[in-house]
Amino acid sequence: MEVKFSTQGFNEVVDITSAVQKAILESDTKDGVAHLFVIGSTAAITTIEYEPGAVADLKRALDQIAPMDAVYAHNEAWGDGNGYAHLRAALLKPDLCVPVRDGKLLLGTWQQIILIDFDNRPRQRTVFITMTEAIRR
Amino acid sequence: MEVKFSTQGFNEVVDITSAVQKAILESDTKDGVAHLFVIGSTAAITTIEYEPGAVADLKRALDQIAPMDAVYAHNEAWGDGNGYAHLRAALLKPDLCVPVRDGKLLLGTWQQIILIDFDNRPRQRTVFITMTEAIRR
Amino acid sequence: MEVKFSTQGFNEVVDITSAVQKAILESDTKDGVAHLFVIGSTAAITTIEYEPGAVADLKRALDQIAPMDAVYAHNEAWGDGNGYAHLRAALLKPDLCVPVRDGKLLLGTWQQIILIDFDNRPRQRTVFITMTEAIRR
Repeated sequence: MEVKFSTQGFNEVVDITSAVQKAILESDTKDGVAHLFVIGSTAAITTIEYEPGAVADLKRALDQIAPMDAVYAHNEAWGDGNGYAHLRAALLKPDLCVPVRDGKLLLGTWQQIILIDFDNRPRQRTVFITMTEAIRR
Repeated sequence: MEVKFSTQGFNEVVDITSAVQKAILESDTKDGVAHLFVIGSTAAITTIEYEPGAVADLKRALDQIAPMDAVYAHNEAWGDGNGYAHLRAALLKPDLCVPVRDGKLLLGTWQQIILIDFDNRPRQRTVFITMTEAIRR
Repeated sequence: MEVKFSTQGFNEVVDITSAVQKAILESDTKDGVAHLFVIGSTAAITTIEYEPGAVADLKRALDQIAPMDAVYAHNEAWGDGNGYAHLRAALLKPDLCVPVRDGKLLLGTWQQIILIDFDNRPRQRTVFITMTEAIRR
């Protein structure tokens, strides 16, 4: 399965929980793991309490770890200005595995799955969802 | 499977390796992957050499990346004072996948699986363990 | 499956994409997930655009997050001087899951899988690759 998301880039944080849940229901999966992976080297997937405060705190922390306007060797070589995005994506990674039981994602009440698009332009992002089944014994 | 851990919060680091290994043995899994996932938005799972020095170094680094007493938009909105915990959890992620062979976790001798509870109060944490089987060819 | 890599340590970044792809082809896997895990507490796996600029930017960021010459409690206890390596490995984690379709890793054109060996000496590293199959419905 794949799910596509249109983003504005520039560190936009998208709550993809309901889209992932919908894909799982369509696959008729009961018990196992949902493997999520975003294609590309300037995006990442993680979880957070999806409320404006926590999201703003995450963005600010990433601004400190990898400032958008710092000097990057990637930018000097390629001139595309998204060196910060490559760095953030490598640190946060493109993958996440979430358990599924009775067809539902196992998440905390205040725990959502987010896609962060670090690139410096709007993008259409593809998240691949692969369902694998739990061993039953 | 699920395993519960009582923590004191405040960045307590718990070595969960033996509890995970025990769950795998009980499931009678031979070859595959153990998927670990901690429910909630203020905890994370990773690996480390579980000795006091390395654990202290990790805590100090997280204190620098996301200080407990910094100003967080999450705290300003919700007043619960655990903005640092949400940030740390989003950066470190709640999931980990560890290979299993012959019913044993494949880890280095000095590589343990840890649960870190960042929240600012004692919590009971649930780690879901899902076993998936390797393709044999 | 396991693949071995000889590294020089000292944060060497190795593009392991083609080795992982080769192992998948040998396993005759069609659709599922490739689970990667590096044994040891001083190495990590992630993805990046594998070009010298982005790799240099990642190394520099890690030098800031966990300087090689800072004071580490791990070093004071064990005297082996690789406290920075333990810290970096715990932050970046040893695992990565990548989707596989029609026997091929699903990655972006400029997205490669890298092994980073943080240790302060040459090492032979073992990456375990476990293939699990997607549910087909």
